[in-house]
Amino acid sequence: MTDDPYQSRVGQQWEAADRVDPVIWPGGHGPLSEDQLASFARDGFLVLPGWVERTAVRCALDEAARIAHDRAGTEEVVAEPDSDVVRSLFRVHRSSAVAAALARSERLAGVASQILGSDVYVHQSRVNYKPALDGREFFWHSDFETWHVEDGMPRMRAVSASICLTESTEFNGPLMLVPRSHRTFIRCVGETPPEHYKQSLRRQQVGVPSADALAHLVDGAGIVAPKGPAGTVVFFDCNTMHGSTGNLSPSPRTNLFFVFNSVENRLVDPFGGMPPRPEHIATREVQPLRLA
Amino acid sequence: MTDDPYQSRVGQQWEAADRVDPVIWPGGHGPLSEDQLASFARDGFLVLPGWVERTAVRCALDEAARIAHDRAGTEEVVAEPDSDVVRSLFRVHRSSAVAAALARSERLAGVASQILGSDVYVHQSRVNYKPALDGREFFWHSDFETWHVEDGMPRMRAVSASICLTESTEFNGPLMLVPRSHRTFIRCVGETPPEHYKQSLRRQQVGVPSADALAHLVDGAGIVAPKGPAGTVVFFDCNTMHGSTGNLSPSPRTNLFFVFNSVENRLVDPFGGMPPRPEHIATREVQPLRLA
Repeated sequence: MTDDPYQSRVGQQWEAADRVDPVIWPGGHGPLSEDQLASFARDGFLVLPGWVERTAVRCALDEAARIAHDRAGTEEVVAEPDSDVVRSLFRVHRSSAVAAALARSERLAGVASQILGSDVYVHQSRVNYKPALDGREFFWHSDFETWHVEDGMPRMRAVSASICLTESTEFNGPLMLVPRSHRTFIRCVGETPPEHYKQSLRRQQVGVPSADALAHLVDGAGIVAPKGPAGTVVFFDCNTMHGSTGNLSPSPRTNLFFVFNSVENRLVDPFGGMPPRPEHIATREVQPLRLA
Repeated sequence: MTDDPYQSRVGQQWEAADRVDPVIWPGGHGPLSEDQLASFARDGFLVLPGWVERTAVRCALDEAARIAHDRAGTEEVVAEPDSDVVRSLFRVHRSSAVAAALARSERLAGVASQILGSDVYVHQSRVNYKPALDGREFFWHSDFETWHVEDGMPRMRAVSASICLTESTEFNGPLMLVPRSHRTFIRCVGETPPEHYKQSLRRQQVGVPSADALAHLVDGAGIVAPKGPAGTVVFFDCNTMHGSTGNLSPSPRTNLFFVFNSVENRLVDPFGGMPPRPEHIATREVQPLRLA
């Protein structure tokens, strides 16, 4: 008997459980309008075209490329499953001054703070490259499921910002989301292998919904894949089901990704009982962002 | 020195060569209008929504499912690269009466005969299942490149029909085509390994364009991915560059695929010098279709 409302990877069968946390936490203020907040609360995500200016996008891309090159071979650089091409660069809010400045901006941390009703800190940051032709899919998942089981995030009080550093089109493997899926917690099947993250960051196979569970969420709600120019930002709730297909286009689809967690939701021991994942994937050091 | 205008897989560097064959061959007649023929000639493909009626679609799906079950374990049934789920069922124009009837219909063989200016026969047929969640990508390729090198098809005088047996959406890995790419033959890099088809039917890695070559074709032309209800047919030229992403949706994307070759373009020895691929992938027996 457990009193964890978000228990997962323990049963033989998937289950749909109700979310017990708010989506918009009381007391926040920031740049979003009431309508935008209501839309986020209803759908579990919000698309803001051109939210980050082009110059910042260009600087972030250039700096990330330099850092990925300098840190090749370290654990912050993750390769594609079928090649040595860079798939993700982790912890960019520490290694990149441009990313750090973006993270604490009113338009990113300010929005997160408004949604979560508290100060926030960066739980995880990364650049996902999705290189042309070589960029493989990210299978469907709720981030919160992994963060709860593998990192010890207690409640659904975190929000992600995905910033398009390149244009997002129908053909370069854009982010796909299941509207309203954030209101349901899918308990996944399967046991977590040791050091699961070393595999899952390349191709995730545990902590993902079964075909039935996904069909349950998509039924009536459909799937959306926001498109937009570089600088477009998609904010999405930590429990919104999302994924993306491979990139078969001749252009990369590169995103800068920040996870903002509430300072009142700091990590505890992982609920799955294994050792926590390393610091560059899920920081345990809470440094509240001072808005720039 | 060779006089083969479509030599491929011999050099260290890709090359773009001009097509030396017509797209619409003289003397044909059939159900397409002059405008439709002109559109096919210009783009290298033609989309006909609802071209095959729903009842035939339903019967074809049901019969293919029975045959795939009955023939499990034979070489006509090809599995997905990462699972045992059926990816393709070959030679359905011989094993399925429904598929055979569709193949020789005015709306399929009749169109092929109109485009190719001669009687036609089925060079290859298959059902591509692209199952929900498990269905992996088909990398970009020109069919003709493979058929010329591995099967011995002399000229660009074949046309494919891809019949949607399920709805084709943005999210279930629809066919993607590069408009006007049929006018350029891309000589590919790489040597063909023995029995290449055993690997390539699951995941093709030889006889595919490099990133540069693909960018050359896509530049200015873009990519299109026709969507439509079950029964929609896409006719495309044997040299049109095409591919499709994986299917991350909870619904399968199943297509019935016929290749019609001109009876005046019968296979010779493979231009790549290897033994021909087996009969169920590329028939060497020319049986002109008698239109139903």
